[in-house]
Amino acid sequence: MALSPYKQLELEWKRLHALRGAVSLLRWDAAVMMPRASASGRGEQLAALETECHAVLTSPKVSRLIERAVAGQGSLEEWEIANLREMRRQRDHAIAMPVSLLNSLVRATAAAEAAWSEARQQNKFELFAPYLEEVVRLVRDKAALLGQARSLEPYDALVEEFSAGVSSEIIDALFKAYARRLPGLVRQVIEHQHAAPVMPLVGTFKARQQRALISEVLRAIGFPFDRGRIDEASHAFTEGIPGDIRITYCVSRQDPFIALLGALHEAGHALYDLGLPKDWLDQPVGQARGMALEESQSLLLEMILGRSRAFVRYLRPLLEKHFGVTGPEWSEDNLYRQLTRVRRSAIRVDADELTYPLHVMLRFDLERRMLAGTLAVRDLREAWNEGMRQRLDLVPASDADGVLQDAHWASGSFGYFPLYVVGGAIAAQLSEQMRRDLPQLDEQITAGDFSGLRAWLREAVHSQGARLPMAQLMESATGKPLGSTSALRYLERKYLETAA
Amino acid sequence: MALSPYKQLELEWKRLHALRGAVSLLRWDAAVMMPRASASGRGEQLAALETECHAVLTSPKVSRLIERAVAGQGSLEEWEIANLREMRRQRDHAIAMPVSLLNSLVRATAAAEAAWSEARQQNKFELFAPYLEEVVRLVRDKAALLGQARSLEPYDALVEEFSAGVSSEIIDALFKAYARRLPGLVRQVIEHQHAAPVMPLVGTFKARQQRALISEVLRAIGFPFDRGRIDEASHAFTEGIPGDIRITYCVSRQDPFIALLGALHEAGHALYDLGLPKDWLDQPVGQARGMALEESQSLLLEMILGRSRAFVRYLRPLLEKHFGVTGPEWSEDNLYRQLTRVRRSAIRVDADELTYPLHVMLRFDLERRMLAGTLAVRDLREAWNEGMRQRLDLVPASDADGVLQDAHWASGSFGYFPLYVVGGAIAAQLSEQMRRDLPQLDEQITAGDFSGLRAWLREAVHSQGARLPMAQLMESATGKPLGSTSALRYLERKYLETAA
Repeated sequence: MALSPYKQLELEWKRLHALRGAVSLLRWDAAVMMPRASASGRGEQLAALETECHAVLTSPKVSRLIERAVAGQGSLEEWEIANLREMRRQRDHAIAMPVSLLNSLVRATAAAEAAWSEARQQNKFELFAPYLEEVVRLVRDKAALLGQARSLEPYDALVEEFSAGVSSEIIDALFKAYARRLPGLVRQVIEHQHAAPVMPLVGTFKARQQRALISEVLRAIGFPFDRGRIDEASHAFTEGIPGDIRITYCVSRQDPFIALLGALHEAGHALYDLGLPKDWLDQPVGQARGMALEESQSLLLEMILGRSRAFVRYLRPLLEKHFGVTGPEWSEDNLYRQLTRVRRSAIRVDADELTYPLHVMLRFDLERRMLAGTLAVRDLREAWNEGMRQRLDLVPASDADGVLQDAHWASGSFGYFPLYVVGGAIAAQLSEQMRRDLPQLDEQITAGDFSGLRAWLREAVHSQGARLPMAQLMESATGKPLGSTSALRYLERKYLETAA
Repeated sequence: MALSPYKQLELEWKRLHALRGAVSLLRWDAAVMMPRASASGRGEQLAALETECHAVLTSPKVSRLIERAVAGQGSLEEWEIANLREMRRQRDHAIAMPVSLLNSLVRATAAAEAAWSEARQQNKFELFAPYLEEVVRLVRDKAALLGQARSLEPYDALVEEFSAGVSSEIIDALFKAYARRLPGLVRQVIEHQHAAPVMPLVGTFKARQQRALISEVLRAIGFPFDRGRIDEASHAFTEGIPGDIRITYCVSRQDPFIALLGALHEAGHALYDLGLPKDWLDQPVGQARGMALEESQSLLLEMILGRSRAFVRYLRPLLEKHFGVTGPEWSEDNLYRQLTRVRRSAIRVDADELTYPLHVMLRFDLERRMLAGTLAVRDLREAWNEGMRQRLDLVPASDADGVLQDAHWASGSFGYFPLYVVGGAIAAQLSEQMRRDLPQLDEQITAGDFSGLRAWLREAVHSQGARLPMAQLMESATGKPLGSTSALRYLERKYLETAA
């Protein structure tokens, strides 16, 4: 018997899943294992595989099958209908982009990334500006085409490619609430924390010791070492597929928390992948529900769990065990103060939970204005510095510590920054509900038992895959739409309590 | 201007090269890095990529382009014509195999490999026989189809797929000469060596120390650590592409030579890859000239170089440096005796240079008879044991140490075994010419200077890629056709001198 159009589509996506898994492994290898002079061959391999994926998505055969499957979707199950919806979304995005524009973007972003790196070293925004201008021009075209294909505002179409269900409307509402409350809260917390100074943690922490600590913590959290790896690398990231998930961490010998919290962040991604619905792993509906949800899982582990009193209580004896450290600066109180310190700083990736959204709001404002044409790239540095002064009351000491600090725009990733903050808000709202459902959570965490947390997240988020649109997923997991209330409540309680 | 048919073919093979490079990396990762429970996802990725390669080779477009390019090859350069010849060969092989037969072979060999492993553990050939019967049946069909497509005898078509230019005629001539001389020579050498016993090398050699030794030796030989890796694994192999070449070694803590000589063997493959013609790396004519040539390069390093007096003289101080070993058993003489010891044994992979061909000749005889239908699989064990008695004057103590010792037949690799011996003969003939051209070679090797050896091999073999058919490559490199004379002369001189 011939397969139905829908079943034929499943086979096409099974193949796509295999190809994308190969891409992910090749990327992991390039960052962790590849000899330093071997980049060009790897580039050819990745390009060949990505071309192949694009060819599958844009083939007339796939479009024909989608039309026929949609016409007959009355006979499909709920998960199949959701799967078909996600297939269409991927197809729409792929088909909206002419190959010529894709190629121009690849070339322009490669050139812009090189120029960005050089400009950053020389601390001169001027060297980067002309390349960024070209990228902005192409991304504007891309946004218009994707917007048409998906019936969305151009900027929203960029966001949707990363994270379906997130829109400017959601972001604006969130950022408006943050803008009202955060600047005052930051001031208040900094003042309060001033009264309880932190004793510095001085020492040298060997890579081997940090690895042992991270392994013990990740094992407790449920990272499956028989179906995953952890490796040291120059930056922290997650690659692989459920069943072969690979995370990296980045070691500082002066500060043992950079590697550990980075690994916790990546473990959040890994747990998401591991909890995805087993029967749908090679289908779109079996994937994570976009970058905002992805980021919510990593922030929940890194920020909400990893910088909680219960976790510090669990961690303190492990620090003693692995690093042999003792003394008052390694007390639970001092460690917690260290991990929840708030300070205004120029660099986004070093920012704490309270000031982080302010960094992102600046980038969101600037990237929208660049795409709309109301901010010229040549005026970007000035707008950046002015925005930093208004939001964080400081002006970066240099371009490298200012407008040149992030690689996102050089890579053409517009619409990505706000997802970090949306992810944080999702994390806070999920966490609030989880605490309601699991009254013993803190005691479990202190005892190194993360099974309750893992089961709750799996049930509420991971096992849902991409079955529900994001808004419905949040309703089903927390009983209310995504908003800023939980996040602000979480930040106020945590950071005003700290200071007390 | 539109590209010529030939230039379009180059683009198709550039893509194939990228896909095959990805396959090679995925294989390397599976053996060296992959978590143990992650095999099934990797299987899907490899199958997807191999299906894609097969689809390219068998596409009507490629066949049409080949026809048009052949019609117009008057306007092509020499390397282009050779490239087109190799493209046709790959296409012919791919297109001759119906997908249904390919799939049957994949299934049958997967089942046979599992049964082989189980049968070996239980030491019962009967458990393997029915699976092998099915594989033989399918390989017979494959050989007939490939033979038709390439106008070759069926068995020769199997050999040609691994190594173009090697035929039963070449193998038969070689084996006939070996069969005449080797049994007597083995007897003679064993008697002579009896007079000069070897002091055993006792000790424990740490993996870390072995790695340091191997790194130092490979660095001297010219392995490019910025475009390659060496890693410990459960077996020794080479994967990757020129520009990212990866070799593994397998450590025994009781015997430091297993890892070192294994790494030298793989370094022979790596040097071949690294010396391939730069302008043709992503084309068929830029690849190695088949498995027999490949094996010649690894045997030249492992056996002819690695077990030579000059190399032992270079190696002795390194053993002292890395393992801290001294004493009479670590003298140059005793080490050389150790490395050139000849003994009759049941296991091919443990065999020395003199008895090794006898192991292969048995397998060649048996596999041809199985394919011809003159030896039934159920009679294979008996034929094996009888063949071992005749050739090596011993009967294996068990099936595991006898007919079940190799995985080749379970994997469907018929026509592969003889290439090990053809490779050894090529190595000896190349080496004889190299010694004539480089009278200072021994002094250079003792001084740890391998540049002369490397340059000679690169000029004579590596840089030729697959430009010449094998016979012509041998004529051009050594001034005479491939034969047994050099190999037998090499073995007689080396092993009768040792014993003196």
